[in-house]
Amino acid sequence: MAISEFELIKQYFDRANVAGRRGIVKGIGDDAAIVAAPTGHEIAISIDTLVQGVHFPENITPADLAYRALAVNLSDLAASGATPWWFTLALTLPESDEAWLQAFSEGLFELAANARIDLIGGDTTKGPLAITIQVAGIVPTGKALMRSGAAVGDKIYCTGTLGDGCGGLQCWQQQLSGDHADYLKSRFSRPQPRLIESSLLLGLANSCIDVSDGLLADLAHIIAASNVGADVDITQVPVSGPLFKQFGELSLEYALAGGDDYELCFTVAPHKADMVESAFAKQQLRLTHVGHITEGSELRCISPDGSLYTLPKSGYQHF
Amino acid sequence: MAISEFELIKQYFDRANVAGRRGIVKGIGDDAAIVAAPTGHEIAISIDTLVQGVHFPENITPADLAYRALAVNLSDLAASGATPWWFTLALTLPESDEAWLQAFSEGLFELAANARIDLIGGDTTKGPLAITIQVAGIVPTGKALMRSGAAVGDKIYCTGTLGDGCGGLQCWQQQLSGDHADYLKSRFSRPQPRLIESSLLLGLANSCIDVSDGLLADLAHIIAASNVGADVDITQVPVSGPLFKQFGELSLEYALAGGDDYELCFTVAPHKADMVESAFAKQQLRLTHVGHITEGSELRCISPDGSLYTLPKSGYQHF
Repeated sequence: MAISEFELIKQYFDRANVAGRRGIVKGIGDDAAIVAAPTGHEIAISIDTLVQGVHFPENITPADLAYRALAVNLSDLAASGATPWWFTLALTLPESDEAWLQAFSEGLFELAANARIDLIGGDTTKGPLAITIQVAGIVPTGKALMRSGAAVGDKIYCTGTLGDGCGGLQCWQQQLSGDHADYLKSRFSRPQPRLIESSLLLGLANSCIDVSDGLLADLAHIIAASNVGADVDITQVPVSGPLFKQFGELSLEYALAGGDDYELCFTVAPHKADMVESAFAKQQLRLTHVGHITEGSELRCISPDGSLYTLPKSGYQHF
Repeated sequence: MAISEFELIKQYFDRANVAGRRGIVKGIGDDAAIVAAPTGHEIAISIDTLVQGVHFPENITPADLAYRALAVNLSDLAASGATPWWFTLALTLPESDEAWLQAFSEGLFELAANARIDLIGGDTTKGPLAITIQVAGIVPTGKALMRSGAAVGDKIYCTGTLGDGCGGLQCWQQQLSGDHADYLKSRFSRPQPRLIESSLLLGLANSCIDVSDGLLADLAHIIAASNVGADVDITQVPVSGPLFKQFGELSLEYALAGGDDYELCFTVAPHKADMVESAFAKQQLRLTHVGHITEGSELRCISPDGSLYTLPKSGYQHF
């Protein structure tokens, strides 16, 4: 191929300190990057791989693919209450197509600039298309949000609307178009990591997770880690207009079990609920109270008539 | 498949704090791992991907593959003078074969325990076999070794012997066997990251790199980053007995340009050379003085008769 690995990195990925975060001592170009976290902070770290044919449709644009790959990682930082700081990229490509690389790097750095996160290193290899990104964020020592802090009586909230990511993927796979389908597809290809919402939760939420496998599957992680149960009021689960218009009654299933939403689901003690609700209202951020934490270990969906609702299927299984 | 991602991680990869490093606040099992570096230290970070069919032969054992994947990353930490602290693993597998996973995790944790590095998180995905590992190490603030510090007059050293990794890969590809071939194959599949050697260089070496692309290609990175030249005495380049016995005159080419060695190449100011040499001698670690840093920007190989030696080919190109 025409371009060497060295030139490829220099041309498309070596954008020194675009986010201007402190503590990036040495970025791309040596055996290791050298960084330092601000004093009084811990580092939150997450890594995710997207594989062609498994995690994204073949006809997604390179810019959207890069955006999505970084976004799903940033979403894990949001779930931890961490502020994005640096990331690394391991990119496996069948060939070094320069137009593809140009578009990919534009999508990547668009979100990186928005989220103020610096690319400090990476690896490019030849092989079947796959993108692995590792992100690091900083969080004041002892303040990281985890799955394990939910307490009986906590209110359960989620950000945004649920089910759009799953609906978007269906639209890709079924090659649907139109305003609703286009909206949903963009929700799949360019999920918005809830970093601002996350920053409002430090010191207020007892537990938090991002909804990647579906609300019920991810809430199940919270209750398992916290040794509690949960009741979800299915009439409260937030569904977007486009999702309902495109998929009708299926919307609820997508919202409960579809995955790929990258909204936050978190729990708050009742006496702190007002503070959280007003912080969100002040910034006009969508927040929905969808249930509460219970004794025991059961996750129950409650129908409007008080009966238990049973979901047709559970969250996404990677294997 | 029989095993879920959750069970797979729990069964094969969740070995809490095997290395016992301080500051691992939360490892596997939440949206993000939470870590803290000891005060007074910076963090060195490196990421590398191994793709089947590109970076390793199909008949390498899963244990060797895991060992190698971690070793090549640890080698980058060694090149930076950093002490291994934590790592993440992104594993893409065509199927969740439990015997394969068992062997892979054994190879991984064998080296992790030796190097005292903790697995803090990861991602498992379905797709063509690929392994991405990101390692982090700690280094006293301001002391990280880089490629850019070489100065005119520095002595150039390398650890161990060169060319064995390349010879080993040839033995795999040509399906050679026998004592020499077996030794060389093990040098390819289980490279030894030079962490002890690295720890002796802090405050003494002016520049350092690990030899992954071949001595000349990697030394070229040092001189480019440092704006200097270098002369290498080809009679001094250390070649192992098995390599010479297996490949004869080709050994020198493998040693100069083969790659996959994961030895360290570093430069030391003349007045510190005795300290480095005696530190290595005291621990019976192999060290070879192979050349010196010059003015200009040329990398020259000097033959015994004083003439310039021209290499048949240059280092490995990923694309």
